[in-house]
Amino acid sequence: MAKLKKQPRPKAETPKGFRDYFGAEVAQRNDMLAKIAEVYHRYGFDALESSAVETVEALGKFLPDVDRPNEGVFAWQDDDEKWMALRYDLTAPLARVYAQHRNDLPTPYRRYAMGPVWRNEKPGPGRFRQFYQCDADTVGTPTVAADAEICAMLADTLEAVGIPRGDYIVRVNNRKVLNGVMEVAGILDLSDPEKFASERGIVLRAIDKLDRLGPDGVRALLGEGRKDESGDFTKGAGLGHAQAETVMGFMSAKGEDGVATAANLRALVQGSETGLQGVEELETIATLLAAQGYERDRIEIDPSVVRGLGYYTGPVFEAELTFEIMDEKGRPRQFGSVAGGGRYDDLVKRFTGQEVPATGVSIGVDRLLAALQAKGRTGEAKLAPVLITVMDRDRMADYQTMASELRNAGIRAEVYLGNPKNFGNQLKYADTRDCPLAVIEGSDENARGVVVVKDLALGKRLAAEITSNEEWKAQPAQQEIPRGDLVAFVRNSLGGSAA
Amino acid sequence: MAKLKKQPRPKAETPKGFRDYFGAEVAQRNDMLAKIAEVYHRYGFDALESSAVETVEALGKFLPDVDRPNEGVFAWQDDDEKWMALRYDLTAPLARVYAQHRNDLPTPYRRYAMGPVWRNEKPGPGRFRQFYQCDADTVGTPTVAADAEICAMLADTLEAVGIPRGDYIVRVNNRKVLNGVMEVAGILDLSDPEKFASERGIVLRAIDKLDRLGPDGVRALLGEGRKDESGDFTKGAGLGHAQAETVMGFMSAKGEDGVATAANLRALVQGSETGLQGVEELETIATLLAAQGYERDRIEIDPSVVRGLGYYTGPVFEAELTFEIMDEKGRPRQFGSVAGGGRYDDLVKRFTGQEVPATGVSIGVDRLLAALQAKGRTGEAKLAPVLITVMDRDRMADYQTMASELRNAGIRAEVYLGNPKNFGNQLKYADTRDCPLAVIEGSDENARGVVVVKDLALGKRLAAEITSNEEWKAQPAQQEIPRGDLVAFVRNSLGGSAA
Repeated sequence: MAKLKKQPRPKAETPKGFRDYFGAEVAQRNDMLAKIAEVYHRYGFDALESSAVETVEALGKFLPDVDRPNEGVFAWQDDDEKWMALRYDLTAPLARVYAQHRNDLPTPYRRYAMGPVWRNEKPGPGRFRQFYQCDADTVGTPTVAADAEICAMLADTLEAVGIPRGDYIVRVNNRKVLNGVMEVAGILDLSDPEKFASERGIVLRAIDKLDRLGPDGVRALLGEGRKDESGDFTKGAGLGHAQAETVMGFMSAKGEDGVATAANLRALVQGSETGLQGVEELETIATLLAAQGYERDRIEIDPSVVRGLGYYTGPVFEAELTFEIMDEKGRPRQFGSVAGGGRYDDLVKRFTGQEVPATGVSIGVDRLLAALQAKGRTGEAKLAPVLITVMDRDRMADYQTMASELRNAGIRAEVYLGNPKNFGNQLKYADTRDCPLAVIEGSDENARGVVVVKDLALGKRLAAEITSNEEWKAQPAQQEIPRGDLVAFVRNSLGGSAA
Repeated sequence: MAKLKKQPRPKAETPKGFRDYFGAEVAQRNDMLAKIAEVYHRYGFDALESSAVETVEALGKFLPDVDRPNEGVFAWQDDDEKWMALRYDLTAPLARVYAQHRNDLPTPYRRYAMGPVWRNEKPGPGRFRQFYQCDADTVGTPTVAADAEICAMLADTLEAVGIPRGDYIVRVNNRKVLNGVMEVAGILDLSDPEKFASERGIVLRAIDKLDRLGPDGVRALLGEGRKDESGDFTKGAGLGHAQAETVMGFMSAKGEDGVATAANLRALVQGSETGLQGVEELETIATLLAAQGYERDRIEIDPSVVRGLGYYTGPVFEAELTFEIMDEKGRPRQFGSVAGGGRYDDLVKRFTGQEVPATGVSIGVDRLLAALQAKGRTGEAKLAPVLITVMDRDRMADYQTMASELRNAGIRAEVYLGNPKNFGNQLKYADTRDCPLAVIEGSDENARGVVVVKDLALGKRLAAEITSNEEWKAQPAQQEIPRGDLVAFVRNSLGGSAA
């Protein structure tokens, strides 16, 4: 047997940009995901769990002029030289799954998926290289009724996880309207789609920066260009004033209500068939949703939603939380976006050559969980166990029996399994775990057929309030009860929140 | 912008050895894992979700004389040249997490974890390179009360997921007893632990093959060696007859009951302190479990459990399902092992230099799920949605409103979103999805304020039985009801299994 070279001790740490999730964090996320899955399921979506590893060619990230095809993905070569990679989202695998199994799947195929994705990006504060996504998509239908349904489901989902109505808004826009605007502004020529491609690219990037730069910054980028604070100059799209104002008009077309917004948009895209089709789609979505009772307080047409317009091909939606939180400098700001999606009609085409219309939404799991935490809506962290302390190590069987009795009654419980010699360590353990109760039975109690139950939570509160030794000695947080009453007494003390 | 070389169409397939899980498969596994988590939680274990990616050095798979440190793991180099890898189990990450966070974690640290692990191995039929594990471990205590507790929890877990008492047995053995046997047989010299290492290796591998080779095959491997059916010769440990019989005696030491088994083992290891300590540990475990009502029908001391004896350092346990299934040739055989574990005392030491005693169990998620499927215990696959068909595409809002009403009543429902032109396609879709009911409302029904509800399941059964056209025309599986009664009628038809 070849001897291994003596290695230095390995460092106990996650790779850069990765982290672990403990106890309540895992439970809260799982609870939230279960609630989301329940809504998705009720809407008729089926679960799909695709493999975490895909071939690089299926992910579509293969760039021919680099050696390693892993811009943004974690990739490696299999034994047969083929490149494999960890999925970077749940949409690319869906396209692969649909193309692979389309003969066995119903059309439309409605699926939801939740799980980790991986990005080979520079990690930063709060920016990890593994995180959860939670998607629902309808594949194989062009009708905007599918888009409307996703918007309704998104609203229902936010309420199901604990965001109250009034604290969120789902905004809907349409890439086709923007295309119509570009046509009217003269930078999209349907007879020569390649023409002005670079101008349109600059326009898309400019409007994507509306939040950050404001209207004047975007105007500058639509025109000659913009010098930023550091003096760097970004070349603009070179649009004339009228052209630029047409594009600006798109983003500010939101009116008093949906009817007014549609009228504004219709005026903007007059003459563009694509643009008018986009406006009609938005109107259809609004009508469908209103008929089901989703009014403007929950879902609205808003042409200022510009995120993702470059990626999607039709309706685009974004869910924003409208309540305020404090930023790192203590200033109030809106919580902001937690989910987004839209229609993408050519992902499957890569595999099959056929255009397969699809629409879907992705929830930012960590963002939404942070929102629930900010609003105190994650519910009680699951209760820590009742601790059976060990006074006499020869009587482990008795202590384990107590734990069994409690567990059989659905109460979370455990016997202290560390070294029982130092009783202080046992109480310290209970403190670290935040145990609500400790059960104590020494030989004296055993002889008298009783046990002592210490209310550790109450004990903590009293300890904070008590000032004199006499009060301390009264120990009201500790109570002796008959051994036979243990389960009933504990259940009563925990007040039903036991399991 | 650099032009991409024209690529051939990518193949829509998972990498070799990977697969996707659809609908009911995902739901059944999640249901099972939720039930397991509930038992683990009630026993006082906290959830841990460590990152899927670890540094190769933390995983402990770095072999200095190969270029790629990925024997058995999927590994790649990070931008800073460091090797990273996908975890191959949940135990190595636990050791890393405990070493990294030990100052903030309670001791003992009781955690459970469930999730995918990855193995870079040759895939085969039913053998995948990504699969689920589900572990519970207690880190930081030497007491065998922790081992006993894991055995009890394993029994409770099997019953919780649907394996009835009598259909499983948890068997317990102890590596220390085997060490004692080796000492008595003269192939373990405590004053020179390196001596006879190669003989002990052969003995461990030989007894690991008891199931496959039977006692005579093992005996041959303990002695001079064994020629297999193909004529290949495997060199044996070279033990004399008496030595070999001592080892064989270990595996057949099981007596009438635990007391008899312990007496047999005690006789075997007479003179070995380690061996006697191992027997005592087994007795303690048996006593603790009996006191909590876990009798021999659920958990028993069985020295013929040899799996994992090479890996673990103390008590070893294995859960076996005892009911029979048919093998691929139609012969009945016992279902076999679905979980295993034991005590391992030096995993954390790699990182910290300190020995940290630990014990735990790992459930083979796919094996256990297959067992539940074989026993018909996965429960009803969640019901497919009620399908609202589209007779008139201008009335999508009305159809969506029906779906909303049903969903608000907790009933899974969806409107058909494919092309509605061909009604046959709508019913075909319902058939593919296995929808229980279809709702039909054309303009005639709409004018009369009624809807038609078609019982598709009943329709299928009738279609199989009906022989004449007259019966078919009676269509008893289809019923016209007032529109206002839709929710109540559907709820009633589904008989409470709606959501």
